[in-house]
Order: sequence, then C-alpha cells, then structure tokens
Amino acid sequence: MSDSIDITYEVTSHHEGHNTKALFREIALEQTVEVPDGYFFNQTHINTTIVPTIKDVRPIDRGRYRATLSFNPEVTACQLPQFLNVLFGNISFKGNVRVVGIDLPEEFLKVFKGPGYGIPGIRQMLGVYGRPLLCAVLKPMGLSPVDLANLAAEFALGGADIIKDDHGLVDQTFCPFEQRVTLCQQAIEAANAKTLHKTLYFPNVTDGAEKLEDRIRFALRGGVAGVLVAPYLVGLDTVRYLASTYRIIIMAHPAMTGAYFHDPNYGIRPSVLLGSVFRLMGADLSIFPNTGGRFNFTPEECLSLSQALRGPLGQLRPAFPAPAGGMRLSNIPDMSAMYGVDTVYTIGGSLLKNHDDVRENTSVFLEKITSNFPQATCQPSVQSSTPQRQAPSPQTSVTLGEVFEHLSFREDFGWSERPPRPYKDGVNLPFRYITRCELIGRYGEETRFDLRYFQIEPGGYSSFERHLHIHVVVCIRGEGVFLIGGNRYTLRPFDVAYVAPMRPHQLINESDVPFGFFCIVDHERDRPIPL
Amino acid sequence: MSDSIDITYEVTSHHEGHNTKALFREIALEQTVEVPDGYFFNQTHINTTIVPTIKDVRPIDRGRYRATLSFNPEVTACQLPQFLNVLFGNISFKGNVRVVGIDLPEEFLKVFKGPGYGIPGIRQMLGVYGRPLLCAVLKPMGLSPVDLANLAAEFALGGADIIKDDHGLVDQTFCPFEQRVTLCQQAIEAANAKTLHKTLYFPNVTDGAEKLEDRIRFALRGGVAGVLVAPYLVGLDTVRYLASTYRIIIMAHPAMTGAYFHDPNYGIRPSVLLGSVFRLMGADLSIFPNTGGRFNFTPEECLSLSQALRGPLGQLRPAFPAPAGGMRLSNIPDMSAMYGVDTVYTIGGSLLKNHDDVRENTSVFLEKITSNFPQATCQPSVQSSTPQRQAPSPQTSVTLGEVFEHLSFREDFGWSERPPRPYKDGVNLPFRYITRCELIGRYGEETRFDLRYFQIEPGGYSSFERHLHIHVVVCIRGEGVFLIGGNRYTLRPFDVAYVAPMRPHQLINESDVPFGFFCIVDHERDRPIPL
Repeated sequence: MSDSIDITYEVTSHHEGHNTKALFREIALEQTVEVPDGYFFNQTHINTTIVPTIKDVRPIDRGRYRATLSFNPEVTACQLPQFLNVLFGNISFKGNVRVVGIDLPEEFLKVFKGPGYGIPGIRQMLGVYGRPLLCAVLKPMGLSPVDLANLAAEFALGGADIIKDDHGLVDQTFCPFEQRVTLCQQAIEAANAKTLHKTLYFPNVTDGAEKLEDRIRFALRGGVAGVLVAPYLVGLDTVRYLASTYRIIIMAHPAMTGAYFHDPNYGIRPSVLLGSVFRLMGADLSIFPNTGGRFNFTPEECLSLSQALRGPLGQLRPAFPAPAGGMRLSNIPDMSAMYGVDTVYTIGGSLLKNHDDVRENTSVFLEKITSNFPQATCQPSVQSSTPQRQAPSPQTSVTLGEVFEHLSFREDFGWSERPPRPYKDGVNLPFRYITRCELIGRYGEETRFDLRYFQIEPGGYSSFERHLHIHVVVCIRGEGVFLIGGNRYTLRPFDVAYVAPMRPHQLINESDVPFGFFCIVDHERDRPIPL
Repeated sequence: MSDSIDITYEVTSHHEGHNTKALFREIALEQTVEVPDGYFFNQTHINTTIVPTIKDVRPIDRGRYRATLSFNPEVTACQLPQFLNVLFGNISFKGNVRVVGIDLPEEFLKVFKGPGYGIPGIRQMLGVYGRPLLCAVLKPMGLSPVDLANLAAEFALGGADIIKDDHGLVDQTFCPFEQRVTLCQQAIEAANAKTLHKTLYFPNVTDGAEKLEDRIRFALRGGVAGVLVAPYLVGLDTVRYLASTYRIIIMAHPAMTGAYFHDPNYGIRPSVLLGSVFRLMGADLSIFPNTGGRFNFTPEECLSLSQALRGPLGQLRPAFPAPAGGMRLSNIPDMSAMYGVDTVYTIGGSLLKNHDDVRENTSVFLEKITSNFPQATCQPSVQSSTPQRQAPSPQTSVTLGEVFEHLSFREDFGWSERPPRPYKDGVNLPFRYITRCELIGRYGEETRFDLRYFQIEPGGYSSFERHLHIHVVVCIRGEGVFLIGGNRYTLRPFDVAYVAPMRPHQLINESDVPFGFFCIVDHERDRPIPL
C-alpha cells in the first residue's frame, strides 16, 4: 500500500490530436492548485508536493483513458469534506471525468473510526449468523404513528431482523418523530418479548442540523440501537461526526446521490461513493438500488459495491451492503448466490402488497432467505477477532423495596443502609482505587436523577470517558483534580463542577488523603464511551 | 402564489405508447409514499394529502414532457433536508428526470431566514453602489500563510472589494487556518488603512463537522465579515444552520454540485439549486461557473440563475450572483451588459498570471468594471426599505452562552458566579429567614435536574408544601429539622433526605447557627401546593 491517496479517473475525449497526459494534468491541477501550469510563482515545491503525480495512463476504450493520480494526503488535511473536494469537487463541472477507484493509505484511514458496529457488531446484537438479514421498511408516508407501530409489530412477529423507517418519514405533523419512535420501538419490544427473536428498529433521524443530535439522543434514550440517515441530505461529514460521537448503528440512505451514477462515462462509481466513502464516513449498513429493481445498477456494480463495504479497508470494520428495491420471493435464490451471506435484504413494497398478509409475507421471505443458507445459526461459528463494541444494555438497578427518607451520615464517609459498591462492574475501562455508594436512585426512589458518593484514594482515578448525560459533582472530602475537556480544576470541599454532554472527563486524586465527592446524574442515561 | 410547493419536472421517454400522465404519477409516488398505487391500505387521505397533484402536463420536445407537481408543504416538514429529498431524493436514481423550476409558498419561505446580509447589506458594508463588485481569489494551494497574506495585500491595494480563499485551502499543515486568517486579515486591514477603500476578506471555513463553528468563531473574533463555504462538502442544511446562527456573510462554493447539471435532460437546473435553494439556505453570494469559462453553463442559464438569486422570493433578501472562471479583461464589457450591476466578478487566474503585476492587474480590472458603470458611487441612490442587519464591528463581542464548569466555594457558604437569590418570588407561601443559591441548572447548563443551596438562619423555616417532583436534600452546614409526612428527622452534615412525590414537607432551623443544605430537583417540575 502506498503512502499517497490514489484516485483512478477515467476521461473521455473525442477531440482529434488531444494529448492524453494533458487530460489528466488538467484534472491534477483543477483538484489542487486551480491555476494552469506556469502560475506557481516559481514555487517549484508546489509542483512536487501539492499537485498529484500521474501514473498508469492507459487507453481503455475508444476515446477513453484511465490513469491514477497520487495525492499527498496532506492536501486533504485528512478530513472528509476536503477529501470529497479533491475526489470530485471542481471536476464535477467537467462533463467527461469519472472516478473509478480509490486506494487510501493507512495514515489517512487511521483518522477515521468507520463503522462503530459493522457486520460483526450487528450480528452479535441480533444473535444471527450464517444467513443474510431481512430489513423491512415502514411506509407509506401518511400512515399515523399508531398505524406504523401496528405495521412494525407485524414485521417483527413475522421475523424481520431490522425494521427501518422509510427515509421520507421525518417529523411531519401527521407523523411526529418522537411519537413514531416511541410507539414503534414499544411495538417491536413487545413483539420481541413474544417471539424471543430479536428485531431492531432504525428510525429515520434525517432532520435539520440543529435537531439531528436531539433525534439520536431521543432514540438512544428510548432503547433504539440504530438509525437511518441520508448523508446527502444532511451532509456526509455530519454523519461521520454523528457516527463517531454516538454509540449507535448507522444505516445510510443514498437519496440525492444518483446524479453521480447517472452516466457511465461521468461521475463517481457507486462502489467508491456508496461503498468506500460511506464506510469511511461510518455507515454500518449502506443502502443501494439493487440490480433488477426500479433503478439501474448493474450486477457487477452491486457486487463491486458490496466488496468495497465488506473487504479489507485499513482498521475499519466491514459494513453490510443493503440492496433495496426489486426484491421478490422468486429471485431470492439468485440474490443469495450473488450477494452471499453478509447482506441485508431491504424489502418494502413486496411485504406490503396486501396489508392483511404482512406478517405472513415477512415470515415467508425470511424462510426463503434462510432456506438458502443451511448453516444459519444463532452463534458465531468462529470467534471474531475484530474488536467489537458491547451492545448497550439497560443499567441494572438494585431494588430493595423499602424506601428510606433519611440516610444518616457516619464519621467514615459512609451512610446507613447504603453499602459501598465496586466502582464499575464488567466494563473494560481503566480506573484505580475508587469506590461508589449509591445514595438515591437505585433503592426504589422515584427519581429522574441519582445521587452517588464516590471516593478516590491517593493515587487513584476514575475512568477517562464521555457520555451524553451530564455530571454535577460536589466535592465534600479532601481535594482532587477534575479534568474536563482540556481544562484542569482543583476541587475542594463544596466546590461544584459541571460536565456538559460529551465532554471528556476524569477525576484524579493526587493528594495523600482520600478525595470524596457527590456525583449527580440522570437516572436514565447512556453508557460511557471510554477514551 | 399558491399554498403548495410547486416543483416543475421534465421527463424524457422514448418508449412507444407510454402514458404521459403515468410518467409523472411515478415521480409523485416515488418522492412521497414510495409504493405503487394500490399499496395505501385503503387510506384514501394519503392520495389526497400526501401524494402531490399533477398539473400542466405538456410536451416540450420530442419524447420530452413537462408538468408541475404540487406538494403539500407539510410533506417536507418545512426543513431543508426533507425538501431536498422531495425535490430530487430517490428520483436522482432515475436517469430521465430534471427539475426545471420551483415555486415556494409564503408559509414555507417564512421558515427560512435566507441571506443575512444579501446585496443591500454587503453594499452597505463596502460603501459601493452602482457597479459590480470585484472578488479576487487567494491561490494556489501550497503558498504559505505569509505568501498568501502578501498576495492579499496586493489585491487589496489594487482595489478588490472582496478577497476570498480558494476553496481548497482548509487547515492543511502547510497552511494552517488560524495563521492564514490572522495574517491575511491583518494584511487587508493594513491595506484598507492605506487606501481608505474597504476590502473584505472571506476565508474558507469548509472543514470537519466538529470544527466548522470554531472556524467561524475564530474568523469573527479576528474581525472577518464573511466566509466561504462549500455546501455540498459540509452539508446544505449545516450551512443554513451556520448562516442563521452567526452574523456573518456566507459565500457559497458549488464544489461537487456539477453532477446535477451534467446532462440537460437530467438533474436539477442550476437556477434552482445554486439559485433558489442556495438563497433559501442563506447564501449571500453564490459562486457558479461563468459562461465561456472552463466549464459549461449557457448564458441563458447564468442569467436565469442570477434572476433566482436577485428576484423576489418571499421575505428573503436578494443575493449576489458570483460568476467565476473565464473572466478576462476583454470580455468585461459583454459581461457587464449581460449581468448588470448587482454581480460579483470572481477572478482568480487572470489576476495571478504574472506575480509582479498582481496589484496592477487588480486595479486595471476594477477600472474596466467601473468604466462600464458611470453611475458607480459610494452612496446608495435610494435608501433601501429592506430591513438590514448591522455590519458586525470588532467592538461588539459575540456572546456564545458561556457555561461554567467549575464553581469555587467561598468560606461563607457562597459560590463564585452564583449570587444568592430570594427564596421564593411572588408566591403566597409562608416562610422565614431563608435564602437560595442556584448552582446548576439555571445558567445555561443542559440539565434535567437542578442543584441549589439553601440556607435557613436560626428561627427560620421553608414553606410547608407538597408537589409531584421529588426532593433530595443533603445537609452541609449546621443542623436542622426535616418534617416529611408525619416523620421528623434531624439533619446533620452529609445526612441525605428523600421526599417522595406528594409527601408534605418542611425544613426548620431550631438551632442558633445557620443551617445549610443542597436540594436537588427535576429541572422541569410542577409548582408546590401550599399546606
């Protein structure tokens, strides 16, 4: 693998006597310096470090040529918007250029988290291995949240692995987001309880820039494990930010991207944009128009896209291809042979044709899918070596029945009826010499916040972490250090500290006596992300 | 003007015997319900309120038809991402559809702020009226911040009205954003002081999602009045958010959008996307490839785009068309005749050809522009009646809602930045000798609970009350009595008390020293009921 970002372009030229090398030189200049040769003010380093080198120029068809441009990764500042600009920014205005391949160096790839769960994480959450997954689509727009929840229940009872909102369902007055998400998630959880089969719900969070994070937070709080989002409607790098910030599965919808695939001699190959780039962005699943459906991807392109999602790409987890459209019961065997096991069949209309048969249709589709994969199982055949995030689980609460109105303080910083507990159970976060005492919130009190007392002995520290829920900390014993974001505070008795959502933080005792503090948090809260 | 969002599409079909109406019905369904007719579960309201009606179907060319689809604005939830989805989301995958016009109702338009300054605001800031503006471009990529600042000085001394970064200049190690912005802005301010002519600097803030606002804040703090940003690299709605949040001029760059304009029988007309939609988004200036330049817009399209930016659009301010590319001294007269007065000529290479002549080249271009507009002046000919935002001035500090992470405790049971307040305002409850201090929850923190400190002097008491929300109380000073229901507790430092929903309660100081305690409550809570 080279150290450069290698982008392979095809150019069409029917001009007589064109200079093939000059065609690619034009792209090289347009995508970086945006001035012709000779405008560099005698700064020769620009030609050697900024303008990409051109290699492997070759004819591939009548009037059509291919070459690879090797860009210095630093030109992209290793960020997605400028990478897109280098890939196809200005030359999107030239009618004869197509991006057909990219090869990204480790140095660039390691900046990106990519899919947070990917194929192994989603399979682990579902407990489904050895067969493709079935994703059913909630639609049409115009149904009420109650109607959609009923439909979701039918899909779930029929055995769908995933149920996603249609991407046109946002926060319309006739179908408000919060109501839809609450009712659909409840309906699916109720169905899961009946079937013992696990179905995941992916609501569509595509919305205005100010609201996106609220949508995801609301979904997370309601127990939702994944979301649908359309990167070309909200911004590709916005999705990368969301994927790398929240512990949630990202299913990407390709709305508005068709313009790049419209002309085989122009644009960007689907395997590059919906494959490699969407995976880089953090898509755990990438939806694309299935061959034979109502749109127009070729079987070769569908396979190439699947390969870009599932094949090796630095340290990034593999993502699920999610072909959509044109999936009928009759072509499941062909699709099984074509796409193989690690695929999500995204099926809308075919399950909905007759409303009374939704559950039956879903069940028949699932059986048909499974019948082509006799090795299907609920256990991973081989333990994956890929590091996987834990599936979110509700915090275990301790219920002891009787609620105390009064907890007496003891001289040794303990409280009656509230024994100290280990700081954290079963998590793989580094911490040292710290204990917790749940004062209010975990013994049956009806609270929306919890009050805990933590104590850190000399030389100890809490885990370095961040999360959506905020912290309010009040020091009551000794003295400690609180790192919040890039700031360092000393906490002395009755000093108060506030940690805003997603601010990295850690408490440290650098003194030689115990450091004790109250910490107040939301009762319902997300799990910390280790840093 | 109608109450619906009217989108005019053109469709090409060379199939024999096609049903013209059915071609548009297919679009109507695809852009909303995404299921064929007959899948609506007998919910006839979907057909009347969700699926757009089709009007004015007419042939316009061989195998080519035009019709207008009238969408219920509610389908878009009046937000930009879903509007884009309705405009061209899924049908971007159909090869034969083009959006040629939009007509937006007041109800929809009034949701959008549009350009914060627009043509009148920018002219007021510059004090230039009656002639087009000259915008010079800092490039090529690879120059150092010092080189670029020197170039900026030459442009400014030559009389450029605006100087913008090339859109490939982001935060590369060889040209860090903050250094570039600081040096270029200083160089331009120094030149302004010499010439008494005003030149504005628009640095490129296109960057990763986490960094965009930092970039704008940094620019604002440095006295910068406008920024360049590429909506298709960072997300259109992200730019809308930035434009509506910050008091800064937005110049939009069209990188990556060329795919929508590539085929005259497909995509979106430039006047719709780079004109109306970018103006809706909040672009004060919209850059597009000038006719005759190295890209391919026709003169008709350039004019239509200019009209979409400058013509009436609800309450939205008019925006500047900023044609770029292919601008030579020789065609300034033709361009002047074509675009008229309210235009920004965006000129890169032509000013840079010979480095030693940059100032002279700029000055010659400006003279040429001005010579075609003898009415040019530094005063508005007619006072605009459009309400205009004030130009930002360096004296005005931008308040970003600072939240304290750390509140230092003072010896006298007070906290820095948190003055004590009366116990209760304007309520008719009996209480005595008690003060409150809001520590967390009322100063901009994102909390679902509040932390307060109360202090009761000897002989004082809180109101006897009950409410749905619970209390958690922690004594930290002196000693007091807590009546909860029929129970009486003595609170000493670090004793904790819990008041369940609707339990009557009152705190009393029967000692001869102050009694102080924290009280934690839900942020959103019901009003107490006096007893």
